[in-house]
Amino acid sequence: MKNTFGNHVAVTLFGESHGPAIGAVIDGLAPGIPVDTAFIDKLLSRRRPAGDISTTRHEADPFVIESGVFEGKTTGTPLCILIPNGDTRSSDYAATRFLARPSHADYTAYCKYHGFEDPRGGGHFSGRITAAVVAAGAIVLSALNRKGIRIATHIASCGGVSDRAFEDLSADMTALDERDFGVLDETVADRMMNAIREAKQAGDSVGGTLETVVTGLPAGVGEPWFDTVESMLSHALFAIPAVKGVEFGAGFALADMRGSVANDPFCMQGGAVCTVTNHSGGINGGITNGMPVLFRCAIRPTPTIGREQETVNMQTGEDATLLAKGRHDPCIVHRARVVVDCLTALVLADMLTGRFGTDWLGTV
Amino acid sequence: MKNTFGNHVAVTLFGESHGPAIGAVIDGLAPGIPVDTAFIDKLLSRRRPAGDISTTRHEADPFVIESGVFEGKTTGTPLCILIPNGDTRSSDYAATRFLARPSHADYTAYCKYHGFEDPRGGGHFSGRITAAVVAAGAIVLSALNRKGIRIATHIASCGGVSDRAFEDLSADMTALDERDFGVLDETVADRMMNAIREAKQAGDSVGGTLETVVTGLPAGVGEPWFDTVESMLSHALFAIPAVKGVEFGAGFALADMRGSVANDPFCMQGGAVCTVTNHSGGINGGITNGMPVLFRCAIRPTPTIGREQETVNMQTGEDATLLAKGRHDPCIVHRARVVVDCLTALVLADMLTGRFGTDWLGTV
Amino acid sequence: MKNTFGNHVAVTLFGESHGPAIGAVIDGLAPGIPVDTAFIDKLLSRRRPAGDISTTRHEADPFVIESGVFEGKTTGTPLCILIPNGDTRSSDYAATRFLARPSHADYTAYCKYHGFEDPRGGGHFSGRITAAVVAAGAIVLSALNRKGIRIATHIASCGGVSDRAFEDLSADMTALDERDFGVLDETVADRMMNAIREAKQAGDSVGGTLETVVTGLPAGVGEPWFDTVESMLSHALFAIPAVKGVEFGAGFALADMRGSVANDPFCMQGGAVCTVTNHSGGINGGITNGMPVLFRCAIRPTPTIGREQETVNMQTGEDATLLAKGRHDPCIVHRARVVVDCLTALVLADMLTGRFGTDWLGTV
Amino acid sequence: MKNTFGNHVAVTLFGESHGPAIGAVIDGLAPGIPVDTAFIDKLLSRRRPAGDISTTRHEADPFVIESGVFEGKTTGTPLCILIPNGDTRSSDYAATRFLARPSHADYTAYCKYHGFEDPRGGGHFSGRITAAVVAAGAIVLSALNRKGIRIATHIASCGGVSDRAFEDLSADMTALDERDFGVLDETVADRMMNAIREAKQAGDSVGGTLETVVTGLPAGVGEPWFDTVESMLSHALFAIPAVKGVEFGAGFALADMRGSVANDPFCMQGGAVCTVTNHSGGINGGITNGMPVLFRCAIRPTPTIGREQETVNMQTGEDATLLAKGRHDPCIVHRARVVVDCLTALVLADMLTGRFGTDWLGTV
Repeated sequence: MKNTFGNHVAVTLFGESHGPAIGAVIDGLAPGIPVDTAFIDKLLSRRRPAGDISTTRHEADPFVIESGVFEGKTTGTPLCILIPNGDTRSSDYAATRFLARPSHADYTAYCKYHGFEDPRGGGHFSGRITAAVVAAGAIVLSALNRKGIRIATHIASCGGVSDRAFEDLSADMTALDERDFGVLDETVADRMMNAIREAKQAGDSVGGTLETVVTGLPAGVGEPWFDTVESMLSHALFAIPAVKGVEFGAGFALADMRGSVANDPFCMQGGAVCTVTNHSGGINGGITNGMPVLFRCAIRPTPTIGREQETVNMQTGEDATLLAKGRHDPCIVHRARVVVDCLTALVLADMLTGRFGTDWLGTV
Repeated sequence: MKNTFGNHVAVTLFGESHGPAIGAVIDGLAPGIPVDTAFIDKLLSRRRPAGDISTTRHEADPFVIESGVFEGKTTGTPLCILIPNGDTRSSDYAATRFLARPSHADYTAYCKYHGFEDPRGGGHFSGRITAAVVAAGAIVLSALNRKGIRIATHIASCGGVSDRAFEDLSADMTALDERDFGVLDETVADRMMNAIREAKQAGDSVGGTLETVVTGLPAGVGEPWFDTVESMLSHALFAIPAVKGVEFGAGFALADMRGSVANDPFCMQGGAVCTVTNHSGGINGGITNGMPVLFRCAIRPTPTIGREQETVNMQTGEDATLLAKGRHDPCIVHRARVVVDCLTALVLADMLTGRFGTDWLGTV
Repeated sequence: MKNTFGNHVAVTLFGESHGPAIGAVIDGLAPGIPVDTAFIDKLLSRRRPAGDISTTRHEADPFVIESGVFEGKTTGTPLCILIPNGDTRSSDYAATRFLARPSHADYTAYCKYHGFEDPRGGGHFSGRITAAVVAAGAIVLSALNRKGIRIATHIASCGGVSDRAFEDLSADMTALDERDFGVLDETVADRMMNAIREAKQAGDSVGGTLETVVTGLPAGVGEPWFDTVESMLSHALFAIPAVKGVEFGAGFALADMRGSVANDPFCMQGGAVCTVTNHSGGINGGITNGMPVLFRCAIRPTPTIGREQETVNMQTGEDATLLAKGRHDPCIVHRARVVVDCLTALVLADMLTGRFGTDWLGTV
Repeated sequence: MKNTFGNHVAVTLFGESHGPAIGAVIDGLAPGIPVDTAFIDKLLSRRRPAGDISTTRHEADPFVIESGVFEGKTTGTPLCILIPNGDTRSSDYAATRFLARPSHADYTAYCKYHGFEDPRGGGHFSGRITAAVVAAGAIVLSALNRKGIRIATHIASCGGVSDRAFEDLSADMTALDERDFGVLDETVADRMMNAIREAKQAGDSVGGTLETVVTGLPAGVGEPWFDTVESMLSHALFAIPAVKGVEFGAGFALADMRGSVANDPFCMQGGAVCTVTNHSGGINGGITNGMPVLFRCAIRPTPTIGREQETVNMQTGEDATLLAKGRHDPCIVHRARVVVDCLTALVLADMLTGRFGTDWLGTV
């Protein structure tokens, strides 16, 4: 369904980087969910470019809730949240209108939309749209928190520097909640940021991996075959620009394990069924088993870089050379963290609402 | 939508491992597609267990097309293909009914279906259901072939042994088309099979990775945000039991590259826009760019193994020990190859039909 | 979604009149619903042609449940029910292959499927497919009954003869449950049947209206805008071949009332909110108000009649005259009654499952 | 999908009567469709209350296109159109917050949303939301016009006064296009308006019927079973507040005809297949046959009237008497005309896009 995702709680995204506004409509939210605008602000600021490791575009992201909230709580009818665009410098893009930026969506959008697409700042393919995901997801994320479900993502690696793995989940998640640069081992933060700065100075960019954990999910959520938890999450995650890989639990490393090692033995703990290890990432047969859901996303380096690149002129069909002007990020891994959190919240809210009905998310 | 996938060409799966039959309904197929039952047979036989590296369950897979075909061609109305189950030994499972097999869907199905699920042979969570995917996908795959679109998957690694990468795509795809054990470098086949045999003798299992390539896709297919090619493919691929990771192009390796290396420069070749490298796997911004689409799936080792494992009794809530009887595969990587091909065909047929209309797939 | 309907409980239909089989897949059913094959049989026999007022085609309708049921109860995974076709006389149709029967789907199917459609007996457009709706719906209808929700349809008019309106709902519904020819006032049954016989003797056909009532629905079911109860029901009802009008409550008669007459005043009755009248048919703003849901379907006279009709040859594009051979019904109103009941059950089960979650329908 | 409709071209509605804004997102529009804001204005003004036969609420309806349009044409990415609310008098409603207006959605919304719904002016259930349908539909309607497809609706009856039927379709449609009060026989306009005024003076309201015709549709559009043209249109039409009946072609009158009269004989006319009569309303077997599509909607009298009515207090569960303050329409039939046109345009654009692909609507 193109720009709508979800069967029970559905989010619809719209907007272009340099158009009047971007935004999201969330439909199917339970009535009675408190809408905390300060929390939305907090998450939006986490996505916002900051300091010398991001684009210099300044986005204050003042959002407007156009519908679906009454007296501070969700009504249950569609919630539209709008973020007007500001600080757009469209002239940066005019000169290179038909020079496709390598590995960006310029050429494919041109093929699909025949030149009618809005080329300014990447149009609808801009990472800017993820601000709408964050605004919408923040509302859902706080609703999940009230139900005892927590979501946290850390920068597992960036620019060749690795963070440590999750250890004490509860403490790690609390720590991440307060950090602007989302690493578990704070000593790696400077090294990652330096790697980003070096790439920037070299007119280049870096990528990384994000690792996400979700706790508090009941066992028995997910659907066989096409709406497995992995299917639904990966569907949404691959929609984030720059995500090129998704793996659950031990993921690709499972391919080299033997079953006797990979299998997670069940055991009783405090009257509850648990697993001794969690190589499956909390999901068996596509359905939650009550253990933490764990997954990683590969984030490619930002395709827009500050160097001359070989490309073609889409209009004339001739080889060309491009030196991108515009402002761009040498790395989006740290900014994408909150996008993954929020999109994960939207997907899980959808699945839980399907499982337990339309009132569930609003109850405590 | 649970067991239905696709917006334009939709496949619906049904069946349990030891029930009367499994099957699939494909809706939205263009009229006039030739249905070659020999080709369906060929692909089904490729999925079928064979030799000493598979389960000893014998599935002749005689299928019946119940609807949607008239005089050897698709009518355009729903095509139901049914595969009766045979050679089921349900008694193998009765004794261990409530002992959850580690990393299998027994426990999660129990949580979701409250004990009403069919436990025999894994029920609806059995890999057996993939035979229906193959039968349905074979019809669509041959239709895509007629449109010049080819799909091939090789065993990139298995049991710790790696195949070579794709080189001459056309030749490699033709070779794979004729091989029962799908590797590019035939010298690794024996080593992989030996690794499987060794695991089997040790009462264990192995996993691996599958790499798939699709050629002939036009540029401009895919939708922004939620129906990107990556989103749609990963949604379907993660539905295959045992898939725990999916990556496109260079995938997770992109996380460690710099943008200047990761980017695929465009160039003109014979009047067409191409890319010099293909780290993006033929997809930019979620939309095809005309280059080969390339992705890899991580396949976990089969969870059912021939050794004693720690687990719990789901009914009594007590720790327990399980020694699985039943017949099981020490490896399903080689059998999953054709499942990936067929599911990929179904997803792409869906996206192409949305792009070009309901007649397109049937025309030549 | 073409041949699939429902967001939470979804039914997928397949089959052609003279193909190997017709059938349905129901997905999203709660686990633990008892499946009473005798009840399925009873409802199928109610749809079956009988006596001298129907086609002489004999359909014993022996169905097979291929999946989704274990030990007599739904598993929660897709339930496929198959009805093999028998007593087909395809030769009846060969001679008139390209002569479009007026007001039948022959010509429109030809335009859509370009001649690849199965023309025998109307193919996928045959009323025969409604047997699959009945088989699938019977399972859901009995589940709703266990939840205190009842559905009954009577022949409000047929061949110009009118039945009385509903009076004592509970008694009327019980009576209808036992009648093969579904009228409330049994004295009109003969008059209706005579009208059918007269039409038949004249080589003609008659239509009628069906009126349906649903009791026991909780208030607060339905969704604003596009998934109102009226929207969902009408969507499904207009899929039944021959339905050309649907109205809720007083329906078209409301157009001529004033608001002061049309409005249903609320009042308290035994501690519950009720309405004094029920011109709205139990639905306000698209959502149930707890009163009986009431609607009527207009059923056109069967298009296949026993007289010469003017038409065209679709292949040659020439005017032509058609005298349909084949066996056909002079009236399908009485047979459609149970189809409406069953389709209504499927739609409401879908909406209730969305409202209350995936377990709801299986609990008591 | 609640507030989203359409599989290929999908519209999502949001907003409450007295919230900041209402609006719509249209996704799946072809790129390159000219967006004529004057035409949107024209259609919005046709829906706007006017003169003494409507509410005195003044809605200038200044809309903002927030996304999806670049240089005056659709980009192909989601188009969001926002209409800020003005002239809201929420205080009118506070006093009667818990007194359910008979036959309005107050009580059912209360049951569904548990009191969290926005009660001001009917909230999301207000007819106000139809302005968003008109704004969105106007864009699609003009695109259909460019493809030779025309849609027109007339007030077939209102307040007991009937308009004549369609005669010369082309001339009638052109005439309707220019009329603010949409009747074919201009001599009945005054009589209808007088009937509305009389009802208003009596503190009452009237209803009516709308009849719609669509010309220029190719044969072969529509899907068997659940996405018939009738199913899709009725699904959308019943979403319009106040619609309680929908019939196609001769509709309910078909129930009393014999087949020999009801059937539409085919004939060749100028090399094209036509039907002599059009009792089927241009649709056979759910698929267009190339003749004009014709349907009628029953519009109930406005439930909010200027008299005392019996009702209940939803909060206390006691009988009560309500004298609605607020401003309200004594009739909405004439205002609903353009809503039906626009919603019809959206549904048909969806079906045609599915049939012919995502570029079709933007080409000429």
